[in-house]
Amino acid sequence: MGYGNLARGVECAVLSSGDMALRAVFTRRDPAVVRTRSGAPVVEAARAGEYGDEIDVMVLCGGSASDLPEQTPRAAAMFDVVDSFDTHALIEEHFHRVDEAARGGGHAALIACGWDPGLFSMQRMLSAAVLPRGRDYTFWGRGVSQGHSDAVRRVPGVRDARQYTVPVRKAVDAVRAGKDPELTVRQKHTRECYVVPEEGADLGAIREAIVSMPHYFSDYDTTVKFITAEEMERDHRGMPHGGFVIRSGVTGMEGEHRQLIEYSLKLDSNPEFTGSVLAACARAVYRKRREGAVGCFTMADVTLAELSEKTGKKLRALL
Amino acid sequence: MGYGNLARGVECAVLSSGDMALRAVFTRRDPAVVRTRSGAPVVEAARAGEYGDEIDVMVLCGGSASDLPEQTPRAAAMFDVVDSFDTHALIEEHFHRVDEAARGGGHAALIACGWDPGLFSMQRMLSAAVLPRGRDYTFWGRGVSQGHSDAVRRVPGVRDARQYTVPVRKAVDAVRAGKDPELTVRQKHTRECYVVPEEGADLGAIREAIVSMPHYFSDYDTTVKFITAEEMERDHRGMPHGGFVIRSGVTGMEGEHRQLIEYSLKLDSNPEFTGSVLAACARAVYRKRREGAVGCFTMADVTLAELSEKTGKKLRALL
Repeated sequence: MGYGNLARGVECAVLSSGDMALRAVFTRRDPAVVRTRSGAPVVEAARAGEYGDEIDVMVLCGGSASDLPEQTPRAAAMFDVVDSFDTHALIEEHFHRVDEAARGGGHAALIACGWDPGLFSMQRMLSAAVLPRGRDYTFWGRGVSQGHSDAVRRVPGVRDARQYTVPVRKAVDAVRAGKDPELTVRQKHTRECYVVPEEGADLGAIREAIVSMPHYFSDYDTTVKFITAEEMERDHRGMPHGGFVIRSGVTGMEGEHRQLIEYSLKLDSNPEFTGSVLAACARAVYRKRREGAVGCFTMADVTLAELSEKTGKKLRALL
Repeated sequence: MGYGNLARGVECAVLSSGDMALRAVFTRRDPAVVRTRSGAPVVEAARAGEYGDEIDVMVLCGGSASDLPEQTPRAAAMFDVVDSFDTHALIEEHFHRVDEAARGGGHAALIACGWDPGLFSMQRMLSAAVLPRGRDYTFWGRGVSQGHSDAVRRVPGVRDARQYTVPVRKAVDAVRAGKDPELTVRQKHTRECYVVPEEGADLGAIREAIVSMPHYFSDYDTTVKFITAEEMERDHRGMPHGGFVIRSGVTGMEGEHRQLIEYSLKLDSNPEFTGSVLAACARAVYRKRREGAVGCFTMADVTLAELSEKTGKKLRALL
């Protein structure tokens, strides 16, 4: 459902899996103007209900702000579904709405899939289960934040913009050294903005509007660099991202031994990687449903065998 | 079952969990000479069968070479069990023997728990599910290998020894840079031996016997350093270990985007960390059994919710 960057990432992942096929792409646009990379048929979103018998899993590729809160419950009443809902603070509410809809329709839903929430969530849960005495640190970047780039683009005088979230090396080093630092928002990440201004725009005013923007930038050390449209196209076309989750914990009768777990991602393409996670999650929700599961689930509820294309015996070879 | 370093690690982990209690320690030694750190009662191993009603999960803490192949199936016929069987090449055989015994007794067993196999296995499975086009690299260390230390201790003229497995920085860097190198055994790890010789021993002969030892050292670049018993006690008492699993993969229609996943552990105490994993696995096997599961399972079959002490709602807050 949807055919933006994330959906194209899912499409790629489905094509490189041996056990999945892409049956259709649903869009709210005119299907005649949407052309899929794989040649999969494009269908009006309003006609999705006609595909109940043909589709095992519907992968919802909309945004968390306005699409998914409404799309996922509606789809879960008709299909087994997967989404990448990522507004952390609203996950519990979304979970209950999707759960009710899925139970009503006798379907299974797996929400908040991707890498954060998603793989990073799995690591936070796993590390906390193994090291109950400890604390978690999550750093993001260096990578492009879509939401922050959009916020900069809305500043008057800005023609185009790209925002990179950058973890602060000193903070990361202190965590890795097991120092368990208390870190403010400002101490964990910096923000770098690359801005193509409109001709004759007041650069000082643009800079000031960005760095003082509440929620997005005012709590961070933000740098603003003005570049040309050519430089934007040449140097900032990609959508790299990444980050790491670190659990710093202790074991021993007196907590005398430090144990450090780190999980890190270095991604050349954020939407393609997120799409790959969604594809594996589609497999998992399909299998859960075939085992009789109904309702809403998260990454806390799936097994690696459910996520994997491999058989039990082949998985045991990976042990 | 058993009360060596690993069992003491499990004991610590159980004590720091809110939902577990240590009912008894079973030993093949005279129980009168075994004193637990927590004060838990010590019972002859032969009397374990009498405890079927009192024990939810039996954690088997013996070695993979001779203890577990025989202990785990026997215990699985009477209890829900967890073990840390780690002879990778024999896991499939062990799995089937334990599965048969567990099914016979109506119990559940979770085998090959720990960090490798165990957490590292989970990461290999997860990464392969998400990035089917890619390859895995596992590096161990810097850390003490018990098996290799024992092998050095058996060399004539050696009074005490400690062997460290050390990943080769150049190889790690090439993998992290996404170069997908082909690496021989020698190119991935070096081995450092610290040896306390007996008085008057032929140091040259000891060194030669170690570096040329088949399986253990002859395929590696091995260094041998002679130290005093005091230096051994002062500098090499700990049991640190660690390592990392890297999946280097690609996504995109033409595989044009590189995606790198890395999981790493830096452990001050290997047995305490492994014991912490076994404790979480004991929780998981208990929950599986309560849901009606019977037979043998691996880390491919457990959910993070089963491993965790937290409720579903608290886990969703970690998403």
